[in-house]
Amino acid sequence: MDSNDVARRAIDRLVAAIVTAWNRHDAQAYAANFAEDVDFTNVFGIPVHGRAAIERSHAAILRTMFRDSRLTVAATTVRFLRPDLAAVDVRWRMTGARDPEGKDWPERHGLMSAIATGTPGGWSFVVFHNQDLPPPERALEIARLLS
Amino acid sequence: MDSNDVARRAIDRLVAAIVTAWNRHDAQAYAANFAEDVDFTNVFGIPVHGRAAIERSHAAILRTMFRDSRLTVAATTVRFLRPDLAAVDVRWRMTGARDPEGKDWPERHGLMSAIATGTPGGWSFVVFHNQDLPPPERALEIARLLS
Repeated sequence: MDSNDVARRAIDRLVAAIVTAWNRHDAQAYAANFAEDVDFTNVFGIPVHGRAAIERSHAAILRTMFRDSRLTVAATTVRFLRPDLAAVDVRWRMTGARDPEGKDWPERHGLMSAIATGTPGGWSFVVFHNQDLPPPERALEIARLLS
Repeated sequence: MDSNDVARRAIDRLVAAIVTAWNRHDAQAYAANFAEDVDFTNVFGIPVHGRAAIERSHAAILRTMFRDSRLTVAATTVRFLRPDLAAVDVRWRMTGARDPEGKDWPERHGLMSAIATGTPGGWSFVVFHNQDLPPPERALEIARLLS
């Protein structure tokens, strides 16, 4: 197993850890996967700087709009830019969310696009963007319209 | 001026170049700003690999749904991960677009989040994601609801 295989497994564990923390609605465990000085941008384009701020903001939303939400990963792709730096795309689905006004947001599809860094202490996300996407069947329809 | 200042100016020129090419509806000039093996993902989550594929796909959409579109940059932020590798966020507005079905899409707001690499030949985007966002006033309202 070469060093990229070891790193890829570590990144897969990092992705699994944010999903597990999300589904436990545990903001501290969620935030622990981000670098202390992470630049995080949520699906609405709202930026948050730093692990502590992620923990605070997620403690609020995991008690409210995402209290009953369940996140699953559809696919993860990793591109190594350096042995200790990788671009990570995570396609996800979510059920059971509510929107910012409290209305049901029953099925979501999206993409986390992040940069992960490896240190002797482990891998973490140093830049992280999240976005909502059309459902896969609608994305296929759009791809046909655009081609 | 230190090396990061020089790199920052080069990245600002790179961003200006994609905007200029877009507004000329010039797919070749647009694609020239991406690394040959770029991983590009559009606002619908549709992935495109490689500069040549970007040129082909953009030649189509710049003749159709974006034929009369005009792109402007609201703000660019750059975070250097290495002297020759940077995370680049570009907040943008667009007027005059049409959606994939050809209906007016009069005012768009969004975020390009990219990874740029510097080589002796210049800077280019090696990973690139684009996303639509709510208008800034709606994003502010959401930020208030979530806090």
